[in-house]
This record gives sequence, structure tokens and C-alpha cells, in this order.
Amino acid sequence: MSPVAAESALTREVVDAVRSVVGDGPVALHEPRFAGNELAYVKECIDSTFVSSVGKFVDRFEAELAAYTGAARAVAVSNGTAALQVAFMLAGVQRDEEVLVPALTFAATTAAVVHCGGIPHFVDSEEQTLGMSAPKLRRYLESIADVRGGVCINRNTGRVIRAVCPMHTFGHPVDIAAIQAIAADFSLVLVEDAAESLGSTVGGRHTGTFGLLGTLSFNGNKTITTGGGGAIITNDAELGKRAKHLTTTAKVAHRWEYTHDAVGFNYRMPNINAALGCAQLEQLPGFLAKKRELFELYRAAFARVPNTRIVAEPEGCRSNYWLQTLVLDESVAGLRDEILTATNDAGLMTRPIWTLMHRLIPYRDCPRMDLSGAESLERRVVNLPSSPHLI
Amino acid sequence: MSPVAAESALTREVVDAVRSVVGDGPVALHEPRFAGNELAYVKECIDSTFVSSVGKFVDRFEAELAAYTGAARAVAVSNGTAALQVAFMLAGVQRDEEVLVPALTFAATTAAVVHCGGIPHFVDSEEQTLGMSAPKLRRYLESIADVRGGVCINRNTGRVIRAVCPMHTFGHPVDIAAIQAIAADFSLVLVEDAAESLGSTVGGRHTGTFGLLGTLSFNGNKTITTGGGGAIITNDAELGKRAKHLTTTAKVAHRWEYTHDAVGFNYRMPNINAALGCAQLEQLPGFLAKKRELFELYRAAFARVPNTRIVAEPEGCRSNYWLQTLVLDESVAGLRDEILTATNDAGLMTRPIWTLMHRLIPYRDCPRMDLSGAESLERRVVNLPSSPHLI
Repeated sequence: MSPVAAESALTREVVDAVRSVVGDGPVALHEPRFAGNELAYVKECIDSTFVSSVGKFVDRFEAELAAYTGAARAVAVSNGTAALQVAFMLAGVQRDEEVLVPALTFAATTAAVVHCGGIPHFVDSEEQTLGMSAPKLRRYLESIADVRGGVCINRNTGRVIRAVCPMHTFGHPVDIAAIQAIAADFSLVLVEDAAESLGSTVGGRHTGTFGLLGTLSFNGNKTITTGGGGAIITNDAELGKRAKHLTTTAKVAHRWEYTHDAVGFNYRMPNINAALGCAQLEQLPGFLAKKRELFELYRAAFARVPNTRIVAEPEGCRSNYWLQTLVLDESVAGLRDEILTATNDAGLMTRPIWTLMHRLIPYRDCPRMDLSGAESLERRVVNLPSSPHLI
Repeated sequence: MSPVAAESALTREVVDAVRSVVGDGPVALHEPRFAGNELAYVKECIDSTFVSSVGKFVDRFEAELAAYTGAARAVAVSNGTAALQVAFMLAGVQRDEEVLVPALTFAATTAAVVHCGGIPHFVDSEEQTLGMSAPKLRRYLESIADVRGGVCINRNTGRVIRAVCPMHTFGHPVDIAAIQAIAADFSLVLVEDAAESLGSTVGGRHTGTFGLLGTLSFNGNKTITTGGGGAIITNDAELGKRAKHLTTTAKVAHRWEYTHDAVGFNYRMPNINAALGCAQLEQLPGFLAKKRELFELYRAAFARVPNTRIVAEPEGCRSNYWLQTLVLDESVAGLRDEILTATNDAGLMTRPIWTLMHRLIPYRDCPRMDLSGAESLERRVVNLPSSPHLI
């Protein structure tokens, strides 16, 4: 068999494996499902005229998110990027301070650092979880960082490194305990980007609750959606109160006066979007069960496809399996684009991982460690159709 | 009659005048009205699953806003604050550059300047329109500003003054022609905060279309609402395209790749909110007619109340009469709080003007001109119940 024919064989096997799980298609990468009280709750908003910044669904969505994640407080905001920006602000990130973020992430993580005046500093990812590599990060910080008076300084740039922000890639939990230990040892504030990991836990504890602040996203492609939306979660009730204040224009409560005691943001989630969220949250356990089932089917189907693996939750963790993740061996990485083309041409929507952040024009000059792990994953990762209602 | 009795008499007359127009109450300051296709369009979103960042209602809302305002392009975003921030960025406001804004405005105008790294520089307001005082601004700039190489420099601070941002207060059009002339003479970019003035025109041309960029708001308290939302409008199609790109994460179009060529924002308006907006736009002419009628009723009722006036549109302009505006004479300004208390106690919701921006903690050190006009208005303005369905 020639090498070209061998390559085509793998691609065909991938297409067949996906089709064996989700059928003939066409199927999207991830679609929301509105099979519950969405319309009833939205109608209630419209009938009551409370569609906007005040309303019972915002309060209810926040209370239910806090209860579900176990956080002391959840603050609903306009989206995950806004949540991250405010979380970084509350973490104390000042102008020109660095924040350690994975190079392998969606652009929101890095943009939010810049939005609050900070500078992203890129960290490598590990093979198993696709998340920040804790061992590499520790060795790297040992080589470039000094902790002086409780502040972490980057010896190379002379700047403060204020925070570290791991992200739970596609819902698969990162090794958060190891990163918590690094944050403690290097005086870094831990902010968790849990945009993709609603429903994912580590040792029974919800992702996003291990640091000072965590953030969630309810964009249309996420496990549950509010149209557009996100949340800040925290175990520090005072910080939660501050997050609410800053994201609702920092207005001081008064019967009629309009006074603001800080430069606030209009990042509130409208009530009509929270209404969708409340209906979606009711269905979350069902979505998660379906996504887990879908994972098992993909794992079984790809067990027969050589040089591939389906990412599985680490021991002691639960993944929400937001986006099912196929990883090619390095030996067949050259086939990634052929696989993407073949699956999409067959109506089975797949996509590669995001272009790594350090390659993007606005971040090319940002500090970084060796990123060979993330660069290898970038060549080899393909997300598969992941909607909960595919099965 | 003692002075105290005289004061109480005016307050009673104000309560009676408001009641004669809107009835016994309780009435809110401004409530939305959903009497059209709101639920049908939202249901369409939910049924189609397109509630989020892509969908036909976003495209339609943008096209209809452009058609209605006469702008070459309208870009729907998450709210008016976000619209202003991106408008200032596109106007070229760089870190530590100044932007001339009214002291008499909602906190969004100033917060947006800070969000893009700029410094608000406060301008006084005039009695008739409650908007920027063009004559005072011109005299002031003549005294403190130099134009060097096409750039306006503040001699006092040494900083660039990049832009001027008048706001059409409560929908009443500012003297935009005079401010256009100042912008031209002092090399300032004109950005119009038309958050409150959808439907307001100057010489038949819609507010927000006189500068390089304008911004709208569809917050729950506005003339039409999308729950939360705003828009950037511009006559420069290329700039409009850039606004769309920056507010939608600056993603480069590709079949599956995720590449971003700038630090973008997630400021898109979700499709479900745009669906509300499309239904609301259909009713806008009716809302405007009702609000104009309400203005006439207030004007007639207050013609009999001494030392007061109801703000009317300047000649050649149309106001949308978003918030009906009562202005007390300086001689009875001391009664403002009594009037606010009495009307609110009577279930007739009223409110004073915003606390002026230069008094707020975060803006106390910002540069400013003499603000005696705005300070006088601050003591004397009371907004009256203004919902279109009150009559």
C-alpha cells in the first residue's frame, strides 16, 4: 500500500467511525436543544415587560448557578469574555501586569487579559487533558520568576505576574490541584476559565471554584445557552457582591439618584436571556448524561481506528464532554486537514483546535514558555459532532 | 403666604399636573411595551435553535436600523456602553488621550472613554437642549487647545484631545451643527452618543449620523428595547465592517479555522435579543407618536404651573421625547427634592438628572471647563413618567 493510500484509509475510517455514532448527517458541531420551559419563561418575561436588567430570572439563574456549582455567589453577565475581564480586574490585574494563560485556548481568555490592561504570558499544554501543563509551568516559573514581598516578578520582563488562568479545554478538567499549588508557591491569583466546563468536576468539586474566581459561558455553542451570556463564580461572597456592582454600572442604590462609585461596566445579563438559562439549567443533567453516552460511543467506535484516541476524563474527574475530542498520533498528524475536509464534506461537522494564541498577530510579542506540547496538539486535535441530542 | 407654604403649593401643583396627564398611577418612569410580534419572533428563534450569535434577526435588525437612521451601516451590539467603547476605539482614541464629553450625561459615556484607555474631559451644557454648550466649548478650546499637525493638544495637560462626544439628552437633539463645526476647526473626531435619541432628527437627518460614528441603546428603559442591546451606526461602510469584526471577536472567516487578527470583543447582540428588536422597531412610529402626544399634554398641563417649563424640541429638530423633562426655575430649585419625594410617594415615578460626572469618585481628577450650566440644570431637572402607553 502506498503512503497516500494508507492516509486515505485512515480518513475513511474516521468518517465511518463518526457516521457510525451520529448517523449520515448533516450534523453540526454543537447545537443547543430547547425542549423544556424556554418559551414559557421567555413569554413570562415579555408578558411582565421585565425583559431587561432587572427581573426574577436573573436572580433565579444566579441562585441556581451558585447552588449547582457550589460557589458562594454567581453573577450572571453578558458573556464569558466579560466575565473573564471582570474576574481579572477583581484579581487585581493592573495595567502592564502579566497573566499566565494557556496558548491553547479560545481567544476570549487572552482578549480579556488585554481588556483589563494586562499582558498574556503563554503556558504550554499537556497531552492528557489538553490543559495547562503544571510540571512544565512549575519548572518554567522556577527559572524565570522571583517572589519578592509576596509579588511574583518576571525576571525577563521586570513585570509583575499577577495571576494564572488555566482553562478546562472542551470541558475536560485540567490538573487543577497542581496549578493551585503553583499559584500558592508563586503568589499568583488563581482565576479559572470554566467557560467550557459547566458540569465538569474534580474530586466532586465543580470546576471554576478552585481559585479566587471562576468564569462560565452560555454562548450558543455551549452545553447550555442563554443566547449570549456568562457568569462569574466565587466562594468569596464580598468579591461576588463587588462583581455584581461592577458589572451593573457601579450604581449606588438610591430611590432616584444616579451615582456611581467606580468606572463600571454594563455587563449585566438581560432577564430574557436569564429566562432561557433557567429553562436550560433544568435540562442540564439530561444533556450531561447524553454527552457522556456520546463519548462512550465515540470511544468504542475509535477503539478500532489506529493512531487515534478520544479524550477521556482524568481519574477522579468528571468531564462534561462538551466537545468530543479526537487526538491523532503525531505519525498521522499530516492527515488532519484531509480528515477535516472529508468529514465536513460528508456533512459531519468537525473542526481543529484554535490557532494557538502566540501565533495571532496581536499576541506575537507576548512572553511565552516553550510551547511544544500545545504546538503538537494543534497539529493533531479534531473536535467531533457533540450535540447531546445526536443520540 | 409664608415661603414654606409657597413651596409646598408648587409641589402640589406639580403632582396635580402630572396626575392630570397620566392618571392616578402607580406609573413607572418608562416601561417597554410589547404589543407586536415580540413573542412570535422569539418563538421563531427558539424553534430554529438560532438564539445566539448568528441568525437572521441580527442581520435584519442591523439592516432596518441602517435604513431607519439613514446610516450606511448599523452594527448591533450587547449594549450602548459597548457601542461607545468600540466607537471611541475606531475614532482612534489611544491610551491617555482625552475625549470631550458632557458632565451632564449617563455614566456610560464616560465609562466607555475609560474602557478604551482614554480620559474624559468634561464640557458644560446649555439650558435649552440640556446638551453640550457649543459656544462655551468653542471659547474654552480657543483658550486651552492648540492644533499642531492636525492633532488637538490640551496645553494644560499636554495630552492629545482626540474626540468630542455630544449626547442627545433624553432624546432632545443637541446643536449638532455647531459641534460639527468645532470638531472640524479643532481636528476632533466627532462621535455622537445617540443612546437616548432613536427617532430624533436634526434637519430631517437622524441623530447619530453627523459624526464619524454614532451609538444607540436598546436597554429596557429606552424607546425600544432588545432586553439589553445597542448599536454602532456610521456612514463609513469600511468602518462599519471593522466595527462588526471587532465586536464579534475579530475572527477571520474560514470554514473551520479559528484565527483572530486583532484583540476583539464579544459584544455581539444575540439573535433572540435582535428578534425583540425587530418587533419593537415595527412599533417605533407608534411609540414616537404617543410620546409626542404625551409631551403636548405635559406642556399644556405645566403651562399653568409657575416657574417651570417642559423641554421642547429646538426649531428644525424632532425630539423622540424619550424622557419628558421638567425644568424648574433657579428660584424654586430648592424644591426639587420635595417634588421628587411627593411625586414618587404619590406613585408617579420621577427622577432627577444624573449626578454630574465630575462629582463621581472615579472622575474627580479629570480635566474640565467651567460647568456652571450643567450644575444649575442638575439642581432643577426632573424627569416625568414617559411610557408611550400612558395615554
